[in-house]
Amino acid sequence: MISPSDHAALLSRARSFLEERRPRIEARLDQLIPRETDPPERLHAAIRWSLFAGGKRFRPTLLLAVGETLGAREADLLTTACAFELIHTYSLIHDDLPAMDDDELRRGRPTCHVRFDEATAILAGDALQTLAFKAIAEDEALEHTTRVRLIAELARAAGTPHGMVAGQAFDLASEGRAISEAELRRIHRSKTGALIVGAARCGAIIAGARSLETITRYGEMLGLLFQITDDLLDATATAHDLGKTPGKDLRAQKATYVTLYGIDGARQRALEAYAEACAALDQSDFDADLLRGLACLVLDRRA
Amino acid sequence: MISPSDHAALLSRARSFLEERRPRIEARLDQLIPRETDPPERLHAAIRWSLFAGGKRFRPTLLLAVGETLGAREADLLTTACAFELIHTYSLIHDDLPAMDDDELRRGRPTCHVRFDEATAILAGDALQTLAFKAIAEDEALEHTTRVRLIAELARAAGTPHGMVAGQAFDLASEGRAISEAELRRIHRSKTGALIVGAARCGAIIAGARSLETITRYGEMLGLLFQITDDLLDATATAHDLGKTPGKDLRAQKATYVTLYGIDGARQRALEAYAEACAALDQSDFDADLLRGLACLVLDRRA
Repeated sequence: MISPSDHAALLSRARSFLEERRPRIEARLDQLIPRETDPPERLHAAIRWSLFAGGKRFRPTLLLAVGETLGAREADLLTTACAFELIHTYSLIHDDLPAMDDDELRRGRPTCHVRFDEATAILAGDALQTLAFKAIAEDEALEHTTRVRLIAELARAAGTPHGMVAGQAFDLASEGRAISEAELRRIHRSKTGALIVGAARCGAIIAGARSLETITRYGEMLGLLFQITDDLLDATATAHDLGKTPGKDLRAQKATYVTLYGIDGARQRALEAYAEACAALDQSDFDADLLRGLACLVLDRRA
Repeated sequence: MISPSDHAALLSRARSFLEERRPRIEARLDQLIPRETDPPERLHAAIRWSLFAGGKRFRPTLLLAVGETLGAREADLLTTACAFELIHTYSLIHDDLPAMDDDELRRGRPTCHVRFDEATAILAGDALQTLAFKAIAEDEALEHTTRVRLIAELARAAGTPHGMVAGQAFDLASEGRAISEAELRRIHRSKTGALIVGAARCGAIIAGARSLETITRYGEMLGLLFQITDDLLDATATAHDLGKTPGKDLRAQKATYVTLYGIDGARQRALEAYAEACAALDQSDFDADLLRGLACLVLDRRA
């Protein structure tokens, strides 16, 4: 296990990385999306409303961290990193729709369909997904073979039967009934895990890694950790901290790590996932402190 | 202009092509989509409900026709052809949602959100879009450079600012107010035209065409023709012929070629678009009769 002083050092390194990379992620995202002044203006305004709402940029940061750790240049990583954020943002817009989670607040602001309208929110999500694939296809920094591999990886992570959309469908099917931990794991492995694992793997692919095994295992545990801390925050945080309505999972009778194990049990499982994410890196032949630091960051997250 | 006997011969050739290729398009579509027995079953059932609902497969047929006319092998064209159908089907599912056109009937059957539920329909559309890009990225028949070019082309045709989703947004913005022919052209150039032009261009790209100019112009006029005949059918056909609720455009106060010019005026414009599609092919150095036949088919369509 990592000592408290090591933990603090790793955390500080990951925080610096996050803060330093963030403006460049924002700048590239801005380049990938049409202006608000380009027609159709309302669609582009809706896309930008949701994309530039103060998100943490966790997935692109993870992709950059894995890629740079394995020797890739930031310039080669940045567009694919942003493509993951575009997919993530589309999923948030569609999740928030009345027919899905019916959320009115996200990152402290009205959700896309509340600020604009439902039809525009559906289209904004649709367009963001298209823009994600377009971004990688048009990324001149990368070889064509690499672009194809990244697009296939992103599509598998975002789609069905093992990706994010499949996870949403599993989640819908579980509402209002008791589910086992195995089912809960399956939901989250696809719903949130697949995109996080995909981001980590794409970082390694761009770096030309020979094997994706270590990074995949790390990504899986990081994704699990991310989901458990998400469930904990939904159960314990205030709307102000969270920027969205807390306690929604409970009211929707959604199975979460908290409804299954209680607060303390979920905290214990978060620590285990954190330890496993770090353990996956112990067999690596590269300096993995930045990736350990990211795991610390997720374990400690407050929003 | 084309004489009536030539018209009949061209039509017959295009009909044979359509009927012969269709089972192979269906078979490839089937391969590209998870089984209904694969979890999440409800999502896959919803995707298949909408995808195998007796659609005409116009876009994949067009891609095959252009590609084969220019010398490509069907085996190299089929997956990309189907990717266009996946995108088209996703757009129909999302268009039919209550927040969009609120349609309950499509191809003579309940729409996806009526047969299943709204959340599942949103996800089914999302997953179909992902599957389209995945299909091309994983198409081993094609070089990586070609796959990248096709994905970029499909993304531009499907997305924003010039593609299908942009067209939907323009359409939303035009509801309930008078618009000019220029505005109507802009809506349809992106809403239905872009995907039709994209399918034609992708056929030419796979065939290794040196210039896309002729095919692009043909696709533009064919797309316009398709939209005008769509508007005519909405205004004149019965629900039985159409398999969906007719007269919806008028009730929704949508601007169409019929609301703008009346039935006879729209018919005149359809003939002009047909003539321009054929004229675009007159400068070609290949046998374009199959493509002329497809234009005849669209002019004569009854559903």
